[in-house]
Amino acid sequence: MLAGRMMDFPLTLTHFLERARTFFGRNEIVSRLPDKTLVRGTYGDFYRRTAKLANALARLGVRPGDRVATLSWNHQRHLEVYLGAPAMGAVVHTLNLRLHPNELGYIANHAEDKVVVVDRSLLPLWRKFADQVRSVRHVIVVPDCPAQGEPTSAEIDYEELIAPEKDEYPWPSLDERSAAMICYTSGTTGNPKGVVYSHRSTVLHTLIVCNADTLGVREADTVLPVVPMFHAAAWGLPYAAIMAGSKIVFPGPHLDPPSLLDLMAAEKVTIAAGVPTIWLGILQLLDQHPGKWDLSAIRSTVIGGSAAPPALIEGFKSRHGIDVTHAWGMTETNPIGTLARVKHGMSHLDDAAKLGCKASQGYAVPFVEQRHVAEDGTILPWDGETMGELEVRGPWVASSYFGGEGPDRFTTDGWFKTGDVVTIDREGYLRITDRSKDVIKSGGEWISSVALENALMSHPAVLEAAVFAARHAKWTERPLAAIVLKEGKTATKEELNAHIEAKFAKFWLPDDYVFMAQIPRTSTGKFLKTKLRELYGDHLEKKGAAE
Amino acid sequence: MLAGRMMDFPLTLTHFLERARTFFGRNEIVSRLPDKTLVRGTYGDFYRRTAKLANALARLGVRPGDRVATLSWNHQRHLEVYLGAPAMGAVVHTLNLRLHPNELGYIANHAEDKVVVVDRSLLPLWRKFADQVRSVRHVIVVPDCPAQGEPTSAEIDYEELIAPEKDEYPWPSLDERSAAMICYTSGTTGNPKGVVYSHRSTVLHTLIVCNADTLGVREADTVLPVVPMFHAAAWGLPYAAIMAGSKIVFPGPHLDPPSLLDLMAAEKVTIAAGVPTIWLGILQLLDQHPGKWDLSAIRSTVIGGSAAPPALIEGFKSRHGIDVTHAWGMTETNPIGTLARVKHGMSHLDDAAKLGCKASQGYAVPFVEQRHVAEDGTILPWDGETMGELEVRGPWVASSYFGGEGPDRFTTDGWFKTGDVVTIDREGYLRITDRSKDVIKSGGEWISSVALENALMSHPAVLEAAVFAARHAKWTERPLAAIVLKEGKTATKEELNAHIEAKFAKFWLPDDYVFMAQIPRTSTGKFLKTKLRELYGDHLEKKGAAE
Ligand SMILES: Nc1ncnc2c1ncn2[C@@H]1O[C@H](COP(=O)(O)OP(=O)(O)OP(=O)(O)O)[C@@H](O)[C@H]1O
Ligand SMILES: Nc1ncnc2c1ncn2[C@@H]1O[C@H](COP(=O)(O)OP(=O)(O)OP(=O)(O)O)[C@@H](O)[C@H]1O
Ligand SMILES: [Mg+2]
Ligand SMILES: [Mg+2]
Repeated sequence: MLAGRMMDFPLTLTHFLERARTFFGRNEIVSRLPDKTLVRGTYGDFYRRTAKLANALARLGVRPGDRVATLSWNHQRHLEVYLGAPAMGAVVHTLNLRLHPNELGYIANHAEDKVVVVDRSLLPLWRKFADQVRSVRHVIVVPDCPAQGEPTSAEIDYEELIAPEKDEYPWPSLDERSAAMICYTSGTTGNPKGVVYSHRSTVLHTLIVCNADTLGVREADTVLPVVPMFHAAAWGLPYAAIMAGSKIVFPGPHLDPPSLLDLMAAEKVTIAAGVPTIWLGILQLLDQHPGKWDLSAIRSTVIGGSAAPPALIEGFKSRHGIDVTHAWGMTETNPIGTLARVKHGMSHLDDAAKLGCKASQGYAVPFVEQRHVAEDGTILPWDGETMGELEVRGPWVASSYFGGEGPDRFTTDGWFKTGDVVTIDREGYLRITDRSKDVIKSGGEWISSVALENALMSHPAVLEAAVFAARHAKWTERPLAAIVLKEGKTATKEELNAHIEAKFAKFWLPDDYVFMAQIPRTSTGKFLKTKLRELYGDHLEKKGAAE
Repeated sequence: MLAGRMMDFPLTLTHFLERARTFFGRNEIVSRLPDKTLVRGTYGDFYRRTAKLANALARLGVRPGDRVATLSWNHQRHLEVYLGAPAMGAVVHTLNLRLHPNELGYIANHAEDKVVVVDRSLLPLWRKFADQVRSVRHVIVVPDCPAQGEPTSAEIDYEELIAPEKDEYPWPSLDERSAAMICYTSGTTGNPKGVVYSHRSTVLHTLIVCNADTLGVREADTVLPVVPMFHAAAWGLPYAAIMAGSKIVFPGPHLDPPSLLDLMAAEKVTIAAGVPTIWLGILQLLDQHPGKWDLSAIRSTVIGGSAAPPALIEGFKSRHGIDVTHAWGMTETNPIGTLARVKHGMSHLDDAAKLGCKASQGYAVPFVEQRHVAEDGTILPWDGETMGELEVRGPWVASSYFGGEGPDRFTTDGWFKTGDVVTIDREGYLRITDRSKDVIKSGGEWISSVALENALMSHPAVLEAAVFAARHAKWTERPLAAIVLKEGKTATKEELNAHIEAKFAKFWLPDDYVFMAQIPRTSTGKFLKTKLRELYGDHLEKKGAAE
């Protein structure tokens, strides 16, 4: 080999910070507080405050590699920790505030968090597990609401902490492969496991997010990360916004549809990103009040984390002229892995076929590679039919978990096993039929719960549908569907089966329907099928016995 | 430090090749031959032919690190070498066919080229320096025109060479820091020097080119690299197009305005990139024949390599609705360093102010850093007035030249000295006032030749203007302007001075004007001011003596 002769310039988050200050000092960062007031800052303020924070953390004894945890909603101060801790060589660890205190205790201990930055509004939650976390030396409280009760002397006010500090910091030069952030999977598949993003993986992911054919984040954009910053780095949007210099709008804790719509209209948001549940709620509200919110600035809503039902994508487009970008990713993939864009060469297809592409999980973004394999590891054909477990690799895919747990998720030839069951078609579009742990196997045949759910969610009375495996005497497992109806609507088992029967083999149709007010969800907004199975796993057996 | 736990997936060009085949197999590559016929291929063909080429090169004995030179116009087979050689671990070395045979001999020897791929239409040029190149083992001839004269037995036909080979190749895994391409500076500043791009630098540059706020190359684009592939990798556009999957249109040797306009209209080009001279010619032709070519598909023309005069940018926009993207770069920067985009926060400015931004050299793209320094190395303020030498650094900036030549271009604190004299304003926009070797110093004061040229080129009779230093008895140097008039137009010294005098201090105005049919240029299309000084350096002294 002949060595290149280009500079050894590391890919670190420090460059984003410097760039934001140098070129985009006047651009805005808007944060909503718990009391709904808006706080406005600029990238210039943000840079100076981040430098102050770094100085303060150094004073508190934070050293390279130390974990600085956050227990926070999405807001500017959270962003200051997001950049400040990694740029000084420490590691930010985002705690998922939707988890049970015991899980949080386990995770904070496992990561050996040394400092915790916690929103004052979340102090009650923190105090539920604080005792369990032996590693913590300092608790910094973000004053996002008026103080309540007695403040502990060990809890330091964020603003008081940074006030006396200098607004410049001698950022160290860092190895691009050093850790920048730790993010834990939510633990629906065993104990939560830590994914350790490096500066390099985060930077490369950011470059891809800003690519024109991915999300194409630009300086002229106004970005609203609805997805929490504790969920896979809010899909990398905060970093993308900083690199591009975009205006950022943080929703704080107000993630209900009317609050989000008010914010999108008032701040002229151009890109917003969140899980399907959020967008289902928003679409329902828009349908009820057409024209109430001026969303003309929006150029794309990004949906991921769970399958975006075709009816959702189609509804936004046809009824409100809003384009949906559907993306797939995981905590383990920093997170964006694939994105559903209709290829240029397919632009002659009819609307239904295009919707078929847009509602798929898409194909790999540059530098991610995809394949699917049978249970015995055989690589499967891209025929649009054969189901297998999706495997991916790339510079922003995990190579191991923190502490070396779960080694079985990594193949010997360098791929990560996603746990998602997919088909891949000739064009490379992949379609998730199930998560492997949720697969329904009826008499030895796989049935795709996702396909059934999408079909059910196109019924006018259905708000949400989750299909899962119930035990069955003869077939071992049979599909059962949990249904949430739209307000004031009704539907029967017969109507629902009639609505979908043309699309599926007869044996795919659910054996029964259970109607619920709400489908149990994971902390990241996915259907919690383990819970459904716990509640209704014996439903068909009982019914069989009763009949 | 805590190490990240993400995959060690290298940033190599191999991924682009695989991606093109996997997702964009049907997308087109169109090449114009010397006889003006168009050859159409697809990314699928391209992949298979590139694999065949790699097998053939391996058979010829090409080993990792070996240099495979090209002496070629822009066309698909050139692209096959561009990707095939680096992906097999070799290094492509693009020879600049506009250089003198002696220079080419020097460069090919210096790079120790082992194989040369040469267009049949350029065989006469190759034969002029072939004897000088001791390292060459094989000459591969691209059959771009009918054979003339006796073919030497040592010259292998490209098509015959690859025909028997397999269309798969076991691409090796490569170190991302290994060399992918060598490109020589054109040598107007001393001996030509080799810049060695790595896979990493090329990949990162490509990611930036595809960023929405840089050129934002997308799959739906049709890209026309007018800039030669031997000139700083055609500004990275071929790689950007492959990563995005865009249709590519190669102009071959036909770079005259009517040929380019025909091609742009016929192939519905959306992005075209070239030096100002090309665009000046095209604008003139469009002005003469408004409406003759349908350029409605164009979304941006990229201009760089020399300063784009404001009148050019304004003319395209106001008279033809075409947006110009002005970018600055060097062979040493892979090449894009800065880009002139009007910031979102400046969108309220009037048209003149916006044109002032668009006609500047812009500000650094992500991961490039810029500063300017005085002769003693002092870092200068960003006040829009103070002139100094531009220095840059970043992952796609050279850290040394091949063979270690020119070490004085690299500062001890890790920056590259560009040789461009600039001002930088508060927003970070830089404006090249001169190349350091072309600076005019009148009585100890710097005069910006570029500012004078831009002002002169806004005169309706002036096609091109080059201002340079002529010797002067009293002031040591004084500005002299070389002018090319538009066809059928006239102008006098008095008219030209009157046109620009409001904009400049009196002592900046050229002492005299010389009218020429053509301004001498370098092989990369820049004004060759050394030549102008050679021809007219004594013009004022002689005139003084005569008066
Ligand atoms: N667009 C999408 N369509 C369908 N499923 C998706 C999509 N995006 C993400 N997912 C699902 O989300 C999973 C990744 O979720 P994430 O890493 O955020 O947490 P989690 O997997 O729920 O946590 P845990 O691993 O603890 O169960 C993917 O493996 C996939 O099953
Ligand atoms: N947009 C631009 N505006 C003004 N000048 C530009 C622009 N883009 C490039 N240049 C000039 O081109 C130079 C880089 O040219 P390049 O590396 O392609 O070859 P070269 O410098 O002419 O060769 P040599 O170094 O042998 O003289 C820059 O240093 C700058 O002077
Ligand atoms: Mg998971
Ligand atoms: Mg140069």
